[in-house]
Amino acid sequence: MSGRLYVIGTGPGNPEQMTAETLAAIDAATDFVGYGPYLDRLRLRPDQLCHVSDNREELGRAGAALSMAADGATVCVVSGGDPGVFAMAAAVCEAIDNGPAAWRTVDLIIMPGITAMLAVAAKAGAPLGHDFCAISLSDNLKPWDTIENRLELAARAGFVIALYNPISRARPWQLGKAFELLRDHLPTTTPVIFGRAAGRPDERIAVQALSNADPSIADMATCVIIGSAETRIVSRPGGLDLVYTPRFMAGGNK
Amino acid sequence: MSGRLYVIGTGPGNPEQMTAETLAAIDAATDFVGYGPYLDRLRLRPDQLCHVSDNREELGRAGAALSMAADGATVCVVSGGDPGVFAMAAAVCEAIDNGPAAWRTVDLIIMPGITAMLAVAAKAGAPLGHDFCAISLSDNLKPWDTIENRLELAARAGFVIALYNPISRARPWQLGKAFELLRDHLPTTTPVIFGRAAGRPDERIAVQALSNADPSIADMATCVIIGSAETRIVSRPGGLDLVYTPRFMAGGNK
Repeated sequence: MSGRLYVIGTGPGNPEQMTAETLAAIDAATDFVGYGPYLDRLRLRPDQLCHVSDNREELGRAGAALSMAADGATVCVVSGGDPGVFAMAAAVCEAIDNGPAAWRTVDLIIMPGITAMLAVAAKAGAPLGHDFCAISLSDNLKPWDTIENRLELAARAGFVIALYNPISRARPWQLGKAFELLRDHLPTTTPVIFGRAAGRPDERIAVQALSNADPSIADMATCVIIGSAETRIVSRPGGLDLVYTPRFMAGGNK
Repeated sequence: MSGRLYVIGTGPGNPEQMTAETLAAIDAATDFVGYGPYLDRLRLRPDQLCHVSDNREELGRAGAALSMAADGATVCVVSGGDPGVFAMAAAVCEAIDNGPAAWRTVDLIIMPGITAMLAVAAKAGAPLGHDFCAISLSDNLKPWDTIENRLELAARAGFVIALYNPISRARPWQLGKAFELLRDHLPTTTPVIFGRAAGRPDERIAVQALSNADPSIADMATCVIIGSAETRIVSRPGGLDLVYTPRFMAGGNK
């Protein structure tokens, strides 16, 4: 008898930013599969089992979860943020695509969550108020040339750009290189938002101009949002500056 | 004495997809400002006041909310989806940018929500598992030439493309034109997901190939997600096909 596989996201880390349906899935599951720090965010009962894995073994983790579900368990695969954005939902689909036929009959329920760029944007104002894109800066996942090409086309298109996985010990120079490339296409005053751990006690939000944006501010828990030429800053006495991208561009029908 | 202004999103319409912090903001507010159908999604107490407005008067609505908050009320501006994505957060920031000084001192708290593309993606599989962009197809907001240019650059960049506001009575031809344009840049088999009212009782999810994608399936409550050349379909016996975009592209470092 086939069981059920939930794929959920914890949001950026503040438990108040999880949805009711995600909390209900956590309550219903018997087995939890995920990277340790994400599992640590859940408040589980003693009868609920954790199967902790390393952050890099996504496909193996997805397969283990599908095997347990195919055997009848109610399994919960846990991502940070939204499971569909640079996270476990794609790994689960890929495992089903390449796995045994039994995995295709597992009752698969993927639940949306608050992805980092939305949480960071809410803290900063409304930088994603107009067209935008999300790019993972990890060249483990794709060639660096592809990333450079995407950054250039995104800037030329006028997209606000949200960068996931901006930096890590193994990838120290990529974010600086991305800023350098974008300086050729965007105004020097373009706001760059560094949003670290949005909504968590160790949250840190900083806004710098592209001309002197400092990549060393970012770490693995940071989502970086780079404005478009339309993005504006509103200064507020005693408060953080607001960064927003207007809904309208000159030349629309209204 | 200045009050507080919450800017929240209801998510795509399923109340189980709202976060705990958003529900707490709704509980705390005295006055609610928004488009009627979004306000109707909330379960308010008799002592909580609704200020209903038309969908198009976003800036006026934002100003009315800021005025009440500046006078000391606890006000909640209500969007569908995430308030930061093509919604009220940008209108509130714009009103502050152009309004009286008192509005800059209002305690402004913007809360992220589940935006339509995340809810639709979760229903379909993991189409946003790799780099993607979000474009509003409304040429009320920007010139149509700009939209065409963005679609072309997004396709050339290899982004999965989420289209918001794909169609309306006043904008009947734009979605068909967008498909036509994208057929010049993407494989004929590229999956197109029509996600209507994801998570609501009247939800309808359909997947078609780009070569014969039918724009008349979409309505104002639909988010359309167009795959990239990498996006794959996994057929499942007795279940909806899964659509996903793999995390890896050939040529990465791992």
